[in-house]
Amino acid sequence: MPFIRRLAIIGVGLIGGSLARILREKGEVGEIVGIGRGEANLRTAVDIGVIDRYSLDPESGVEGADMVFLATPVCSIAGLAARIASHLSAGCVVTDGGSVKGEIVAACEGLMPAGAHFVGGHPIAGTEHTGVEASFATLYQGKRCIITPTERTDPQALAKVVRMWEIAGSEVVLMDVEKHDRVVAAISHLPHMVAYSLVNAVEGYDRFDENILRYSAGGFRDFTRIASSDPVMWRDIAVMNREAVLEMMDYFTAHFSRLRALVAEQEGTGLEAFFAGAKRSRDAIL
Amino acid sequence: MPFIRRLAIIGVGLIGGSLARILREKGEVGEIVGIGRGEANLRTAVDIGVIDRYSLDPESGVEGADMVFLATPVCSIAGLAARIASHLSAGCVVTDGGSVKGEIVAACEGLMPAGAHFVGGHPIAGTEHTGVEASFATLYQGKRCIITPTERTDPQALAKVVRMWEIAGSEVVLMDVEKHDRVVAAISHLPHMVAYSLVNAVEGYDRFDENILRYSAGGFRDFTRIASSDPVMWRDIAVMNREAVLEMMDYFTAHFSRLRALVAEQEGTGLEAFFAGAKRSRDAIL
Repeated sequence: MPFIRRLAIIGVGLIGGSLARILREKGEVGEIVGIGRGEANLRTAVDIGVIDRYSLDPESGVEGADMVFLATPVCSIAGLAARIASHLSAGCVVTDGGSVKGEIVAACEGLMPAGAHFVGGHPIAGTEHTGVEASFATLYQGKRCIITPTERTDPQALAKVVRMWEIAGSEVVLMDVEKHDRVVAAISHLPHMVAYSLVNAVEGYDRFDENILRYSAGGFRDFTRIASSDPVMWRDIAVMNREAVLEMMDYFTAHFSRLRALVAEQEGTGLEAFFAGAKRSRDAIL
Repeated sequence: MPFIRRLAIIGVGLIGGSLARILREKGEVGEIVGIGRGEANLRTAVDIGVIDRYSLDPESGVEGADMVFLATPVCSIAGLAARIASHLSAGCVVTDGGSVKGEIVAACEGLMPAGAHFVGGHPIAGTEHTGVEASFATLYQGKRCIITPTERTDPQALAKVVRMWEIAGSEVVLMDVEKHDRVVAAISHLPHMVAYSLVNAVEGYDRFDENILRYSAGGFRDFTRIASSDPVMWRDIAVMNREAVLEMMDYFTAHFSRLRALVAEQEGTGLEAFFAGAKRSRDAIL
């Protein structure tokens, strides 16, 4: 018998589709039901073998599932948990892939009926592409997946979610919800805020009568790759994790302002130390 | 007869070494003389065939050269031009690869003796690696090279420098000095200032008793690649191009502050527009 008998995935895109692919490839899932609003996408998912069947209706789609994976935009997760709650089978484990955990975990835990359990999760993986056709079985291979148990988390449900991500090839890290939201604000949300702002600043630079972005080289393109990410997804993340995002933006601004002062004062020694410190830190994570 | 009879390269590293390699490969250079302060590096350059011979002395090293390429850090270029000026042969063309042009071009033009000509240049190419062993013949292939003639530039000298970079595979763009310094401040210097600040901000984040950089994934590593660049080189660029760098840093700060306000006010529509605008601009330069 496979590890998961019936997996319901709400939101069959890059994240949901990639989990489906690897569990199927490993033979660790019996049936995969895809749930979503876009029928064309779900049909494609069936056609390319990512899911077995689909439902446009979350309530009936999750029936009989022993694992539900909520892989929709962060703003929609709690609402979907509310819709499916009374349709969950006894023993069902519900988890998510949202990159913000505070509001989601608090809301979803409170919604679970007796016998069903919620465990928050966040696979730190992705590309700038979206949709089920962008999904691939090795997306999670060697990547960290942060699982955020609370005092209320059922130990067996936690173990099942951890095992699922280990099967997917992830290195699972347990972290409390608050720390998770601060860590991802630093290593993921802040870089996105910076990249979007950088592109807008250069695009908006109007000293010359032509768009100077045309002179950008590979370095600029690489640096700004994440500014090609989905605007709606990042709108939702920025709103849901605003406290941590604002804190990190202010941390950044403090460092950037210090650098500006060093440049303005032509402080050679201070500039070299600033750059060398960053290089040391960055080289250490290579 | 090759296009360049004797090429003297002052500073045989990634930039100088890569130009030597491609001109040699194309059969467009007779002899290549490497000039520098580090004898071990110059010996290596001879051993791996990048240069034919070397000199530790710029004055004698440039004798008999019909082309001199100054490929040293930006702060040293004008000083070297002053040292070699009286040793240049009649008809010699001197050019450089510095990523700041204002101060360099003004100084070097004034230093040239009768019969020798300076033309400022800036190949927009590079990697985060340094040294002659990091050089390769295709570094400039398909990359832009900005040449910055002034009213005083000799037309034949300009044509020779343009031709040299075309042989190297570059797409040559002529631009005035002032515009060059603003454009590179936007597309190169600002991203470096941002990347160094970002790494320092995340490294300095001290809310938890561990370094959260360990949780960073591929996205963060890609985004911060340029923060692994040479601190001394960037110290010099920041000082020499400070006016344009400060202007771009302030442009960035204005956009970043606007984004901060949108996050703080949970302005969903404004956030989506901010992100979507950046995505559109960035996708357009793919």
